Amino acid sequence: MPQHTPDPVDVFAWIDAAERAREEAGLVRTLRPRPPVSPLLDLASNDYLGLSRHPETIRGAQRAAECWGAGATGSRLVTGTTELHTELERELAAFCGFEAAVVLSSGYAANLAAVTALSDWGTLVVSDAGNHASIVDGCRLSRAETAVVPHADPDAARKSLAAHEGRALLVSDSVFSVDGDAAPLAGYAAACRDEGAALVVDDAHGLGVLGEGGRGALQAAGLAGAPYVVATLTLSKSLGSQGGAVLGPARVIRHLVNTARTFIFDTGLAPAAAGAALASLRLLQREPERAGRAREVAAQLYGRLTASGLTAARPDAAVVSVRAPSASAALRWAADCREAGLSVGCFRPPSVPDGISRLRLTARADLTGDEIDRAVGTILATAPAGAVQGRGR
Amino acid sequence: MPQHTPDPVDVFAWIDAAERAREEAGLVRTLRPRPPVSPLLDLASNDYLGLSRHPETIRGAQRAAECWGAGATGSRLVTGTTELHTELERELAAFCGFEAAVVLSSGYAANLAAVTALSDWGTLVVSDAGNHASIVDGCRLSRAETAVVPHADPDAARKSLAAHEGRALLVSDSVFSVDGDAAPLAGYAAACRDEGAALVVDDAHGLGVLGEGGRGALQAAGLAGAPYVVATLTLSKSLGSQGGAVLGPARVIRHLVNTARTFIFDTGLAPAAAGAALASLRLLQREPERAGRAREVAAQLYGRLTASGLTAARPDAAVVSVRAPSASAALRWAADCREAGLSVGCFRPPSVPDGISRLRLTARADLTGDEIDRAVGTILATAPAGAVQGRGR
Repeated sequence: MPQHTPDPVDVFAWIDAAERAREEAGLVRTLRPRPPVSPLLDLASNDYLGLSRHPETIRGAQRAAECWGAGATGSRLVTGTTELHTELERELAAFCGFEAAVVLSSGYAANLAAVTALSDWGTLVVSDAGNHASIVDGCRLSRAETAVVPHADPDAARKSLAAHEGRALLVSDSVFSVDGDAAPLAGYAAACRDEGAALVVDDAHGLGVLGEGGRGALQAAGLAGAPYVVATLTLSKSLGSQGGAVLGPARVIRHLVNTARTFIFDTGLAPAAAGAALASLRLLQREPERAGRAREVAAQLYGRLTASGLTAARPDAAVVSVRAPSASAALRWAADCREAGLSVGCFRPPSVPDGISRLRLTARADLTGDEIDRAVGTILATAPAGAVQGRGR
Repeated sequence: MPQHTPDPVDVFAWIDAAERAREEAGLVRTLRPRPPVSPLLDLASNDYLGLSRHPETIRGAQRAAECWGAGATGSRLVTGTTELHTELERELAAFCGFEAAVVLSSGYAANLAAVTALSDWGTLVVSDAGNHASIVDGCRLSRAETAVVPHADPDAARKSLAAHEGRALLVSDSVFSVDGDAAPLAGYAAACRDEGAALVVDDAHGLGVLGEGGRGALQAAGLAGAPYVVATLTLSKSLGSQGGAVLGPARVIRHLVNTARTFIFDTGLAPAAAGAALASLRLLQREPERAGRAREVAAQLYGRLTASGLTAARPDAAVVSVRAPSASAALRWAADCREAGLSVGCFRPPSVPDGISRLRLTARADLTGDEIDRAVGTILATAPAGAVQGRGR
């Protein structure tokens, strides 16, 4: 008699059910590969200064690959540190007004590094409710107790810090990605000073846009280089490359080099990415007006869209967020824009903190007046019923 | 009478204490930037096939930067997916024998993505005690219960899986970074099949070295493409670039695209890194003998070093790990090698699972016979007392 052999179990059957649920909710995400030269006008990327396509940035990537090879070949602590990495770290720290910097393979890795290495059992991490996923994951990975406080509420942060004995950290984005609003950095900093806490600020969306010549939100707030302040950055937005960085007092950076797992156990940033970021940084120092231009474009987009009855958050940096009546309406609106030659971001649950779907527009510094006209015209022409106030469409 | 103003608190004073403790333990890590052309013979990097400096790989990076720009400019779900990313994913999946692939900004991000997206409350994740930090962090980030089982012990894994009701995942490196030993993949796979669990294997150190023409450890074990198997990879080792990937059934990859936070909320891999990895992959397909050569060099290094009395683990891939009598002896040994023109890895606590410090040698496929002679000679000439058996030095 043959032995009974059970049918093999379909271990991923649950994925089909999850997929069906996403389909029913209209929340399926698919990748839309772009060709080398896109026919679309880009108001969706985070390439705020338009530098990812700048010849100097591209040349920076190419020369670095030629000189240093295509990869870092190992952890920064083994073979992965080149003189190029050191140069980038030195110039980035000096530009933003910090004592030292360390560069990692992504902004995500930088936030995981900063939050986990600066906290431990007994540390309280106070986190703004609007913080980026990478900060949230940093809190989850850390051994610290995390207190999520209401968005942009320094009093709540202060109360949370005051109730804690021992080490504490307040962590916040400088500019929140979804709505483009700025954090109350002065209030956060005062709370930290008064309560003896460290302040960690992710300036991913501030670098290149805010501060003098794009030196970032912390420079703008007079907080750069303060002994209790640590900044995290991405090299993939205004600098048009890839990578992340942590900036702060030299002892903090040394501590990260010695203890941050996403630094120690990750291959170093590719030379091409470091070279591109460094080229962009030098370009920005020669052309500091690019930062102001991005803010100006954002103000124009906001002014013209809200004057036409759309609801948008007043932009504090280069992100203009326009409300949509529903997730499906947002999706259709973005698709209609694309159909009409305009690429816009579309943020829906679970990527929005409040369940409100939005079009997310980025005000690139290199948009021309004609392009702004075209963008505004397209967004208004495709706006769904319910998006425009006082229009019964 | 002036109001009493407390001295500002030095919030990072604890870092100085931690630094002093590291100094006293001889465990301070410092960055050692290398120049463009290193005078050292490299046996420390993970550039197993020597492709990071190959003209075709470098040209792949440069052309991609020219064609697609220096950065991906956004999340893969917004503007960060190019036709280049899709091409790389298709060719990588086909090469390794899987249905589909998704590329992320690092191998670290790939492991966080795979472990967190494939587990949830109620899932059991069984994790080999020797797993890489990124897998450990994936377990910590997931909402699953994690069971760490003894290293390379399929029976322990099976017992742990059998004791659990509901979804389960067994996760392991294919080749362990510290000792270069291979996981018991056949035993792990049988345990998963019998217990209805998924198998997630990090093939970072297997790709390009193991399997037919470097197709990896899962191809070698006859497990590539199995419906319950998921692979994670890095593009930064044998492929000489930067980035990571997850390979598996198409529905699993779609699930990651929809749910993995390190995919959704991270900027896409830089085009130069994708282009370099693709160029290396094509080169490897044209020159499949590179994989066997790496294994051959490892066998030579192991044979000659152990014949001379050093203690090393028999290499299953391209890593040869040589035991040192102590952390400080390992550090001095590596420094003496460097002094003599040889770069070797030095693994000390907390980067080793068992407290035993080691020199870690990587057997690059492009080492010449003369270079191997030189490496062996240098390692033996600098070996500390206690490292060589039968030698009272």
